Amino acid sequence: MTDALIGPSRRTRRTPFSARVEAAGAKAYTVYNHMLLATFFRSMEEDYRHLKRHVQLWDVGCERQVEVVGADAARLVQAMTPRDLGRIAVGQCAYAPLVDEAGGMVNDPVILKLAGDRFWLSLADSDAGLWAQGLACGMGLDVRVFEPQVWPLAIQGPKADALASRVFGDDIRNLAFFRFARFDALGHAFVVARSGWSKQGGFEVYVDDAEAGQGLWDALIAAGEELQVRPGCPNLIERIEGGLLSYGNDMTQEYDPFECGLGRFCHLEAATDFLGRRALEAKLAAGGPKRAIRGIAFVGDDCPPCVEAWPVTQGGQRVGQVTSAARSPWLATNIAIATIDRAAWDEGTAVVVETPAGGRNGRIATLPFAAPAP
Amino acid sequence: MTDALIGPSRRTRRTPFSARVEAAGAKAYTVYNHMLLATFFRSMEEDYRHLKRHVQLWDVGCERQVEVVGADAARLVQAMTPRDLGRIAVGQCAYAPLVDEAGGMVNDPVILKLAGDRFWLSLADSDAGLWAQGLACGMGLDVRVFEPQVWPLAIQGPKADALASRVFGDDIRNLAFFRFARFDALGHAFVVARSGWSKQGGFEVYVDDAEAGQGLWDALIAAGEELQVRPGCPNLIERIEGGLLSYGNDMTQEYDPFECGLGRFCHLEAATDFLGRRALEAKLAAGGPKRAIRGIAFVGDDCPPCVEAWPVTQGGQRVGQVTSAARSPWLATNIAIATIDRAAWDEGTAVVVETPAGGRNGRIATLPFAAPAP
Repeated sequence: MTDALIGPSRRTRRTPFSARVEAAGAKAYTVYNHMLLATFFRSMEEDYRHLKRHVQLWDVGCERQVEVVGADAARLVQAMTPRDLGRIAVGQCAYAPLVDEAGGMVNDPVILKLAGDRFWLSLADSDAGLWAQGLACGMGLDVRVFEPQVWPLAIQGPKADALASRVFGDDIRNLAFFRFARFDALGHAFVVARSGWSKQGGFEVYVDDAEAGQGLWDALIAAGEELQVRPGCPNLIERIEGGLLSYGNDMTQEYDPFECGLGRFCHLEAATDFLGRRALEAKLAAGGPKRAIRGIAFVGDDCPPCVEAWPVTQGGQRVGQVTSAARSPWLATNIAIATIDRAAWDEGTAVVVETPAGGRNGRIATLPFAAPAP
Repeated sequence: MTDALIGPSRRTRRTPFSARVEAAGAKAYTVYNHMLLATFFRSMEEDYRHLKRHVQLWDVGCERQVEVVGADAARLVQAMTPRDLGRIAVGQCAYAPLVDEAGGMVNDPVILKLAGDRFWLSLADSDAGLWAQGLACGMGLDVRVFEPQVWPLAIQGPKADALASRVFGDDIRNLAFFRFARFDALGHAFVVARSGWSKQGGFEVYVDDAEAGQGLWDALIAAGEELQVRPGCPNLIERIEGGLLSYGNDMTQEYDPFECGLGRFCHLEAATDFLGRRALEAKLAAGGPKRAIRGIAFVGDDCPPCVEAWPVTQGGQRVGQVTSAARSPWLATNIAIATIDRAAWDEGTAVVVETPAGGRNGRIATLPFAAPAP
């Protein structure tokens, strides 16, 4: 499968930036929220080195927004997450696990509070908008739930501030982490957040006008020439090093947020009314998670793609599974994100990763991965 | 994009048959319900010619099932569709539009009635299971909604009965269209329906055991050698000729079932309680659909892939859009599925299809396309 093409169809939707992504030579794509997402341009490793050193533009239009607006908007959004949204101000982004009544993860969006009665859920890869619509209808709420025409464009990398300030002005440097505001560029007021799916820092522009967005793309490429800006995309190596979880890869509806290490976003002590409260409280009362997401550093520098969960063993006994893996040039070894049983989840525990190319010795690590010993 | 690779990840799930599909040389894939689906093996046209003449095995594991089971199962499933499910017997399949409270299409599954209180919804490409879960939770229903471990395997083509009977026995020849029953093969009782996403006839086996399913695949390939069986997949050319609509391509949540030509599955006269009733009744009272899905036969034998809607015009005015297109060897011309405004939707109406390669003259056709003049 690794040398197969992606079949073209309207169902796997294009974004306003797709023609530019193609022109820049994207070599592979995945489908995310029924939309195209490039997976690498030159090579996974060359893209990675560039991302950690310079700045990239990412077409992440596939981060589809679910807009929830109306008198019951805050009630509906709160019903979907254990995070206490009462603490979130207008203009603030909140990473939030969405959980069903069994405590299972439905998605892990960034929620933007646009107004007291208006939210965007910037989705990972599941149609959580349909879930929200079903809940709203079943609960009889006074709210509208729909997918607005918004395509995020990310500016990521250590030179992201330098690039963004050239187009949006120096004020953008003062934007705090996970805050958003409108910034003018080329006569259009764009919603810009300091956020993004890398650990290199940067911004996400919530493009709400295709033509203005294309102008913005071109302006950023032109303004970034001496910064060595390039079109890019979320990078597998960088996101594993940084411990950024991927819904559908590292967690599914079979996981609860405590297993995913997202307990700090679960405010059970708050008096909020969310669907999964009873299930999550029962899980905690029963002693908390019996498995958790961890890193593994394991032997080798020829990591095959992880297209199915790989067993993790200890003395021949299964103690977990790897769900994402890559070779890290920074750590000079293979690294993985894995789900590990309690008995083996302590940092430094020796395990074996059962790759398709055979068992490889490894050690449990905390996420994000720490810098290598000097 | 048409020569780009598909990026490997666990999120774009494999099926129990993926290794066999790869070994058979699938050259391209799409992602459907977060799962891999091959789009062609030798070439789209060579696969098409083979499908219309012989028999193929299709890995359609991506037709994910939503199981709805419990005291309120029938009530929940009925709430989602205007089709009167009271008329459906156990052992029967029912193609059913799922519609939201605004009348918009959420999915168009085949519903299998396994028991009075147990249904499978064999999904097109949207997470309608999340919608069903949201509804069930919001309505406080006594029902369980989940994705069972079931991967459909289709046997399609004019020799499908000949092949299936060699493995399942001659009784399977008596299975009526859109009926299902358990048939034994290799010591396992498989749910088999006479159905499938082609117009060539055949079966869908609802494989509920990965290993047994792999054995079945191998047995069918071995038994079908002299029938020239091949691994295959839903074929774009054949499905456009046959007028089989694709959710996400030809219809979305912006469409109601009348616009999709699915009025015969909307039993508004029945005393059923479904979410979209008020919206659909209002649409009919307002004069019915103002646009509808039609075929178009248009000039040319070099059809580019339709990755974005192409405008359809008449005298320079937009009268609709093409959503799927291919060259038909049978009709010796390009053909398309399109959404056409009422003013232009009559059979034979002259229109222009605005392809990326320029405008092409065409004529409105009914679906499925009729045999060419002799």
